Amino acid sequence: MPPLRRTDVVLDSVKRLQRIGASANLINLLQKQHPSDLAELFSELPDRDRRSTFNLLLDHHSHLAMEALIEYGPEPAAVLLADQSPDRIALWLQEMPSDDAAALIDELPEELSDAVLEQMRPRESGEVENLLDYAEETAGRIMNPTVFALSEDLTAGEAIQALQGSREVEMVFYLYVVDDRRHLVGVVSLRRLLLVATETPLQRIMTIDLISAGVDTDQEEVAQHVANYNLLAIPVVDDQNRLVGIITVDDVIDIIKDEATEDIYRLAGVSGDEHVFSPARESMRKRLPWLLVNLLTATAAALVVRAFQATIDQVVALAVFMTIVASMGGNAATQTLTIIVRGIALGELTWGNSRKAVFKEAAVGLGNGLVLGMVGAAVAWGLSGNMYLGLILAMAMVVNLMVAAIAATLIPIALRALKIDPALASAVFITTLTDVFGFFVFLGLATLFLPYLEPLT
Amino acid sequence: MPPLRRTDVVLDSVKRLQRIGASANLINLLQKQHPSDLAELFSELPDRDRRSTFNLLLDHHSHLAMEALIEYGPEPAAVLLADQSPDRIALWLQEMPSDDAAALIDELPEELSDAVLEQMRPRESGEVENLLDYAEETAGRIMNPTVFALSEDLTAGEAIQALQGSREVEMVFYLYVVDDRRHLVGVVSLRRLLLVATETPLQRIMTIDLISAGVDTDQEEVAQHVANYNLLAIPVVDDQNRLVGIITVDDVIDIIKDEATEDIYRLAGVSGDEHVFSPARESMRKRLPWLLVNLLTATAAALVVRAFQATIDQVVALAVFMTIVASMGGNAATQTLTIIVRGIALGELTWGNSRKAVFKEAAVGLGNGLVLGMVGAAVAWGLSGNMYLGLILAMAMVVNLMVAAIAATLIPIALRALKIDPALASAVFITTLTDVFGFFVFLGLATLFLPYLEPLT
Repeated sequence: MPPLRRTDVVLDSVKRLQRIGASANLINLLQKQHPSDLAELFSELPDRDRRSTFNLLLDHHSHLAMEALIEYGPEPAAVLLADQSPDRIALWLQEMPSDDAAALIDELPEELSDAVLEQMRPRESGEVENLLDYAEETAGRIMNPTVFALSEDLTAGEAIQALQGSREVEMVFYLYVVDDRRHLVGVVSLRRLLLVATETPLQRIMTIDLISAGVDTDQEEVAQHVANYNLLAIPVVDDQNRLVGIITVDDVIDIIKDEATEDIYRLAGVSGDEHVFSPARESMRKRLPWLLVNLLTATAAALVVRAFQATIDQVVALAVFMTIVASMGGNAATQTLTIIVRGIALGELTWGNSRKAVFKEAAVGLGNGLVLGMVGAAVAWGLSGNMYLGLILAMAMVVNLMVAAIAATLIPIALRALKIDPALASAVFITTLTDVFGFFVFLGLATLFLPYLEPLT
Repeated sequence: MPPLRRTDVVLDSVKRLQRIGASANLINLLQKQHPSDLAELFSELPDRDRRSTFNLLLDHHSHLAMEALIEYGPEPAAVLLADQSPDRIALWLQEMPSDDAAALIDELPEELSDAVLEQMRPRESGEVENLLDYAEETAGRIMNPTVFALSEDLTAGEAIQALQGSREVEMVFYLYVVDDRRHLVGVVSLRRLLLVATETPLQRIMTIDLISAGVDTDQEEVAQHVANYNLLAIPVVDDQNRLVGIITVDDVIDIIKDEATEDIYRLAGVSGDEHVFSPARESMRKRLPWLLVNLLTATAAALVVRAFQATIDQVVALAVFMTIVASMGGNAATQTLTIIVRGIALGELTWGNSRKAVFKEAAVGLGNGLVLGMVGAAVAWGLSGNMYLGLILAMAMVVNLMVAAIAATLIPIALRALKIDPALASAVFITTLTDVFGFFVFLGLATLFLPYLEPLT
C-alpha cells in the first residue's frame, strides 16, 4: 500500500471525534480541509457518520460544505442534501456555479427539485433550467454559462480594466472576444494582453482561428478536442455562433475519467454508475441483468454441447478438451475486443481505416491460432495418447481464434456505425459466441472423425 | 459513424497529392494544419506515405514537423526520426521543450541517442540527461525543467515586468515564488497580480499553502493530485524543496488517458503499448505470452474435468451443464474484478476500507448466486428432466459465484499491497480460477449424488 495519505489520518480523527461527540473540535478540523479532501472523506465514512459530518459542516460553514458537495459528485451529493428543506437548498444552490447547481438539481427527487427551483432567485433558476434543457452528455448541459467576454471594440488597457472590475469569472486565462451581438469573434490570452501597449485594439492582437464547441456537441468529443489541442478551456457557442458558455479543463478531466470508467465497465458487463461502495443491493440489481443474459447465452452454448451428446457419450475425453477450445477463444476475443473498443474511444480507429483493422486482427488470430494449436495438440496428444484428438483440437483452435478475432473486430465497429456504444459488445457476448462456435467446431470435427477417436474412452 | 472529421478530408487530400507527386501543394496543405492534426494524420497514413509526408514537412517547416512529432508520441516519433543524421536531429531537438526532447531521445536506438546528445548544445543536452536520470513514470522524468519563478522580494509591478521580459515559459497562469536559494515559498495567480497595486510586495499576495510534487512522486499520483484539486499545473521540487520543474495539465491528461488504457488492457491480457495499428507480428508476439499462460491454466481446468471422467462417463449430461457453471462464475468474477481494479485506480478503494469491499462483494455474489442458481436449476431440470441435476447446478453456482466474488476482490487488493499492479490480476487468471473451481464443485457434487442422477444418460 502507498504511504498513508493526508485524508487517512483525517478520516481516523473524524471517526474518533464523532464517537466522543466533540463537535467543536470536529468543525475545527473540517474547516481546514480542501473541498476535494472533504469529498474523499465523505466517500470513505460509514453512511451514518457521513451524514452527521456533512450536516455539522453545513450548519457552520455552508459555503465549504457546498464546495465539498461539488467535488463529491452530483449523485451522492443529492442523497446528502435530500433531507434539507427546499428553501435552504435553494439558498445554497444559487451561490454555486450554475453548471454545478444544475447537475445537483438534476439528481434530486423530482418533487424536491421543483420546489427548490421555485425558491431560487429567478435569474439563477433560469440559468439552471436553461442548462437542463440541453440533452445529457452534451456541451450545453455541462458548460458554465457565466463566461467572461470582451467587446471587440476595446483596447488592451480597457480590457485589463474590465477584467479587474469583473467578479463572476470561473478561471480566466483565455479572454474571449465578442461583437455587439455576442458572436464569438476571437480570443486573447491574458499573457498577450500584458505584453502589448495599453492603447492596442483587441482586434489587432486577438487570434481569430479559434476552436469552439456547439451546445449539442457530445461531451466526449469536447473532451477529445480539449485534450488534442492542449487547451485549458473551450468556448461553447449556440447555432448562431453566439458565446453561451465555457467548459474548463478540470471538467474535461472528469469527463475523460468517467468515459474511461464507462468503457472498462461496459466491457465487463457493469453499468457506468456503479462504484466500489455502491450498496450491495444496488450492485446486485445492476449486475443481475447482465448475468441473466449470460445465463441465456451460456445455455445456448450448453445446447450446442447437448447436440453432440452422442459423440461425447462414445468418447468422453472430448468433454475434457472442449473446454480448452472455448477458453482460448474467449481470451483471444477479449484481447482483440479491448484493443478495438479502446482504439475507437481514443479516436484512432475510424470508419475509414476499419478494414485494415479487420485484416490485421484476422492475421493475428491466425498466427496465434497456429502457435497455440500446435502446443495444444501436443498437450492433448500427450494427455490422451491419441494423435487425432490433438489434430482436431489444433484445427478447432485455429478456426475458433480466427473467428474470435474477426467477430471481436467487426461487432464493435458495426455497433459504432449504428451509433451504439461499441463497448456494449461486452465480453459477455463475444465470449459466448466463441464458446458456442468453439464447442461446435471441436465437437463437429470429432463427430466427423469419430472412427479415429474410438480407441479412447 | 460521426460526421467526417477535419482530418478525414485532409487525409484523402494528402494521399491524393502523394500519389500524383504534387509536393508544392502538399507542403502548402500541411503547413496550415495544427500539430495535433498532423500527428493524427501520421497515425492514419500508410507507413510509406507517412515517412515521405514527414520528411517533406521536415525539409520545409522543421519547427512544425517537430511540434507534430511531440503530439504524435515519443515511440512512433523516434521511428520517423531514426533515419536522419545525429547532427540534424540534435539541431531540432535542442529547440524543443526539454521534457519532450528527453522522451524522444529515450526512444531512439542507443547509438543514435548517444550521438545526438553529443551534438546538442551542452546546456540542452545537460537538461535532457538530468531528466533521463530520474526513474521512469516519476514526476522528475516528465516535468518541464524550464519553469518561470519570481523572487519573493519583488513587488507586483516588478513581477509583471519580469513576466513581460521572459521568453521561455511554457504556460504561465500560476507564478511560483522562490527565495534566494530557489526554495519554493508560494504561488501567485496572474489574475491576482493584475488586481493589486503595483507596489504591493509579492509576499503579501502570494498563497503559501500550495500543493507540489516531489521529483520521485509516481506520475499517476501527480495526475490524481492535479485532477482532485482542479489545478492547471503542479510545481515539482527536489528533496530540499527547491523548485526544479513544472508539470502542466495537458501532460496530466495524457497520463490519465494512458493509465486508463493500461488498466483496460491489463485486465484483458494486452500489454500497455499496443495500439490498433501496431504491426500484426508485434501484436501477435505481445499477446501470445498471455494466451500461452491461458493455455496452461485452461489445461489445469481440463485436468479437473478429467479427474471426474468416470462420473461424466456415467452421466454424460454433466458435460453439457458444467460449462454453464464455469461461464457464470467467469463473468461474475470479471464484473467484480473490474469494479475493484478501477476503484483502486481512482483512489476510492484503499487498504483501510478493503474489508468492507470484500464483505460487500461476497454479499453480491451470494445474492446473485441464489437468483441465478434458481433460474439455472429450472433450466437444467427442464432440459434434463432430472430435479437433482437442477439442485446440484444451483448449489454449484451459488458456491462458485461467492468464490468468484471473494477471489476477484482479494487478489487485486493483495497485489496492490505487494506493490504489484492490481490490473495484472487479469481476467485470464480469475476466470481460470472460476473454471477450475466451478468444474470441481459441480462435478464433485455430481459424483457424491451420482445415484440420483443415474436415470440420466
